[in-house]
Amino acid sequence: MSGHYLGLDLGGTKIEAGVLTDAGAILARRRIATSELRDGPETLPNLVRLGLAVMADAGVDRVQGVGVALPGPVDQNPLRLLAAPTIPEIEGVPLDGPLREAFHVPVAGDNDANACALAESRFGAGRGQRHVVYVTVSTGIGGGIVVDGRVFRGARGTSGEFGHQIVAHGQGPRCDCGATGCLEALASGRGIAWRAEAWLRYPEAPASALRGREPLTAEDVAAAARAGDKLAQEVWTETARCLAIGLSNVINVLDPDVIILGGGVALGAADLLLPPLREWVDRICMPSLSRHTPIVTAVLGADLGLIAAAVLAMPAAE
Amino acid sequence: MSGHYLGLDLGGTKIEAGVLTDAGAILARRRIATSELRDGPETLPNLVRLGLAVMADAGVDRVQGVGVALPGPVDQNPLRLLAAPTIPEIEGVPLDGPLREAFHVPVAGDNDANACALAESRFGAGRGQRHVVYVTVSTGIGGGIVVDGRVFRGARGTSGEFGHQIVAHGQGPRCDCGATGCLEALASGRGIAWRAEAWLRYPEAPASALRGREPLTAEDVAAAARAGDKLAQEVWTETARCLAIGLSNVINVLDPDVIILGGGVALGAADLLLPPLREWVDRICMPSLSRHTPIVTAVLGADLGLIAAAVLAMPAAE
Repeated sequence: MSGHYLGLDLGGTKIEAGVLTDAGAILARRRIATSELRDGPETLPNLVRLGLAVMADAGVDRVQGVGVALPGPVDQNPLRLLAAPTIPEIEGVPLDGPLREAFHVPVAGDNDANACALAESRFGAGRGQRHVVYVTVSTGIGGGIVVDGRVFRGARGTSGEFGHQIVAHGQGPRCDCGATGCLEALASGRGIAWRAEAWLRYPEAPASALRGREPLTAEDVAAAARAGDKLAQEVWTETARCLAIGLSNVINVLDPDVIILGGGVALGAADLLLPPLREWVDRICMPSLSRHTPIVTAVLGADLGLIAAAVLAMPAAE
Repeated sequence: MSGHYLGLDLGGTKIEAGVLTDAGAILARRRIATSELRDGPETLPNLVRLGLAVMADAGVDRVQGVGVALPGPVDQNPLRLLAAPTIPEIEGVPLDGPLREAFHVPVAGDNDANACALAESRFGAGRGQRHVVYVTVSTGIGGGIVVDGRVFRGARGTSGEFGHQIVAHGQGPRCDCGATGCLEALASGRGIAWRAEAWLRYPEAPASALRGREPLTAEDVAAAARAGDKLAQEVWTETARCLAIGLSNVINVLDPDVIILGGGVALGAADLLLPPLREWVDRICMPSLSRHTPIVTAVLGADLGLIAAAVLAMPAAE
């Protein structure tokens, strides 16, 4: 049955609401700053008003379901955000009951990484594939697993924590999780900045345009690498090597049809990251596995978050 | 519907056939040396005769299905062993057609690690759990994933290669797969022997009863550790630490209900391995995850291989 779905993408800085067709087309969208939602007991009513407004924009008086993408770990029953440093107002607050009551339709939600995995699997770079792994590389590293059109959540909904794989026992900076050698600490945006700054401190470090510009960002290191800076280029090569280990581990454990990379760092520096990444995956993964596992970038672009929220409410395709 | 199943467990040194009830009870079993099967074009007829003989032993003239556990990578369609250094006669030979024709029932097969995962999930240490990970630690390290009573095979049936996760970028001996830092190279039986021998070569190595007894086996190192040998005990602690990283990575990616350890090394040295393993998993895994993930040993013992073969033919429990 064809139909319309309301997507609510709750982020730390902005909230986006949209009405989408079951083919993933966006009929209308509205965006507010997260701070506008933060109005004590009015938080949920504000969210409902945003949803109703965007439905009016789309000329739609009912939807088949409401999907909610959330910026942190999620409990499914009731649907709630377990930790929400960026939206403390809704931490632990059941969302499915009030939204179901307001919109009179089923409500489904998940963390944003799982939602993006499902969206790219259904409408993006994983279209037509049965086993899809989505890995987001931005400030941190996370992701989601989709099998046969459904999010593989694991026993407690915490699967897909690709960033906390330890790939370098005892090496690198301490991760926020407390361990050392985590992929996130080595290959996220922060990991890239850490590596560049650490290498600049080596007495034998080559001359680099980055020197004296600390604290650095991944964008700084990308710009310098593109301008020919040797140290910056080597930082990207080593980052790609660490990421290659993490993705090879995922291939060895899950044997997916495709790995999709998303997130600001992976999409913003795909030119620097993907060629050495592919080379290293082919080197360290068994050839029979790696040659069958494409590694591609997400294609839904600026629409990904909204499509991701709405797709959570859509029934799995047969 | 209750019924009987024929299990054929094809190993590199022995072939076992058995008739089992759908509750996993073994009604009859027969074992031959793999060499007895190796009779050129007669290989498959020999296997069929073994199956018919054990059915006669059990007083059963028909079974509901035939399950085949195979010692290597398996293609499902047709069912065949893709690489079989220990039984080259059947490498690449379709098995499901001839067996279906001989027994007039459905035939299902898989590699032995996936089969053991399913058996322990259904009748052993994973009973009643939805998400089960089985990791075998013996000469090598492998395993299988069971979700809702079914083997999670991945896109090409090669999931569960836990041993080829890289956990220590650039450290340790080169793995057979070509990479460095693989869990298998660091924590399998061979990895344990390698570590003990490497540490004995350190000039600052403590006195050890293992010195002069090279080449060592994991059993040698276990016996020495139990007798109080400090170097041997440290080898087990470091092995447990590497294994803890591998299992923590699996917990972070898959979020299983339980991890079951099997294989000669894990079962034979559980006393040395499990306490430090648990301690390190609790240390490096996020506490909210690790405290909900029991790590236990396989319980089906010497029957595991046969139950594993037969369970492949049983329909998934509802």
